[in-house]
Amino acid sequence: MSVGDGLIGLPVTDSVPVERGDAARNRALLLAAARRLIDERGANTVTMDDVATAAGVGKGTLFRRFGSRAGLMIVLLDEDEKTEQRAFMFGPPPLGPGAPPLTRLIAYGRHRLRFVWDHRVLLADANTDPHMRFNAPATLHRTHVRMLLAAAGTTGDLDAQTQALLSLLDADYVTHQVEDLGHDLDRQGDAWESLARKLCGS
Amino acid sequence: MSVGDGLIGLPVTDSVPVERGDAARNRALLLAAARRLIDERGANTVTMDDVATAAGVGKGTLFRRFGSRAGLMIVLLDEDEKTEQRAFMFGPPPLGPGAPPLTRLIAYGRHRLRFVWDHRVLLADANTDPHMRFNAPATLHRTHVRMLLAAAGTTGDLDAQTQALLSLLDADYVTHQVEDLGHDLDRQGDAWESLARKLCGS
Repeated sequence: MSVGDGLIGLPVTDSVPVERGDAARNRALLLAAARRLIDERGANTVTMDDVATAAGVGKGTLFRRFGSRAGLMIVLLDEDEKTEQRAFMFGPPPLGPGAPPLTRLIAYGRHRLRFVWDHRVLLADANTDPHMRFNAPATLHRTHVRMLLAAAGTTGDLDAQTQALLSLLDADYVTHQVEDLGHDLDRQGDAWESLARKLCGS
Repeated sequence: MSVGDGLIGLPVTDSVPVERGDAARNRALLLAAARRLIDERGANTVTMDDVATAAGVGKGTLFRRFGSRAGLMIVLLDEDEKTEQRAFMFGPPPLGPGAPPLTRLIAYGRHRLRFVWDHRVLLADANTDPHMRFNAPATLHRTHVRMLLAAAGTTGDLDAQTQALLSLLDADYVTHQVEDLGHDLDRQGDAWESLARKLCGS
């Protein structure tokens, strides 16, 4: 329900802030309802009808706002990605700044494994598009891991080592580990830590 | 045109070996023609009409034999995969047995990079199916890399290190490196060697 983002200094008519407020309110209601339903029953079973009903908002508004069910899911994923990014870039240690680089790298992997598992369906969809795997959306994670490797004084080809580490967080791989091999997230976190320690030479 | 594979001890009529010979001859002609055309112009521009014409075989025979263009391409990939597998399992060193494990691992990566680049279109297709990425077709490569890491006395989580190494041979990643970043196969081979040496502690 935050109002006024980006509006400072722009000429606005009397009616615009009111419409924006309504739209923002509906958006917030719809996203909150979608999150609540997904938490309760998992993303796969939640329909657009469910979301509109739970939010007390017309289905037409829901579709106008998000385009499709996939559009709604992408907005939810994007919001969660931003929250996670803030946590590892600006949040408290050991995930955020203040802890030694290797400690942050280990915390990042364990945190991200949980995120990937919680968002595995949407992330696996994105995975089928190679541009999603190696370009814009993945770049921040790549930059973060590479920065921590460099800060830890890691020797060798840092780009290759970054790719190598991130392959353990691939949504399809994480799902395969859990569903086909029975390796839970703690065990996968240990594997991440083992590889991170080895690359950082500790 | 090998005849008799699996036929020993089985009762056959007089006509069967002749039909088998014809079928085998057509198959060999079609595959040889497809390979020649792909070598000349790249896989993307070769049509089923081209293959049938070049082989001097009816188009109906081509479709009956391989089902579809995709089916033909999969047979070609499969044949090449088997040739490569024989080379790293039974061929001369440094790829095959006889060289030290790390030397073999380095040779495998450089060899496989070239294979992946040459077959990138088909492999990228297979990549969109997570079962293709982590199950049967990929298992032999996974087993081979893990075996060499173990033979080299590598410490830590060998499964994670195997996944990490193999991520550098992912068809989408290799293509991204070449086409978006301008990193040729030699440079990628150096990155593979750098990571392999680090994991093996050399």
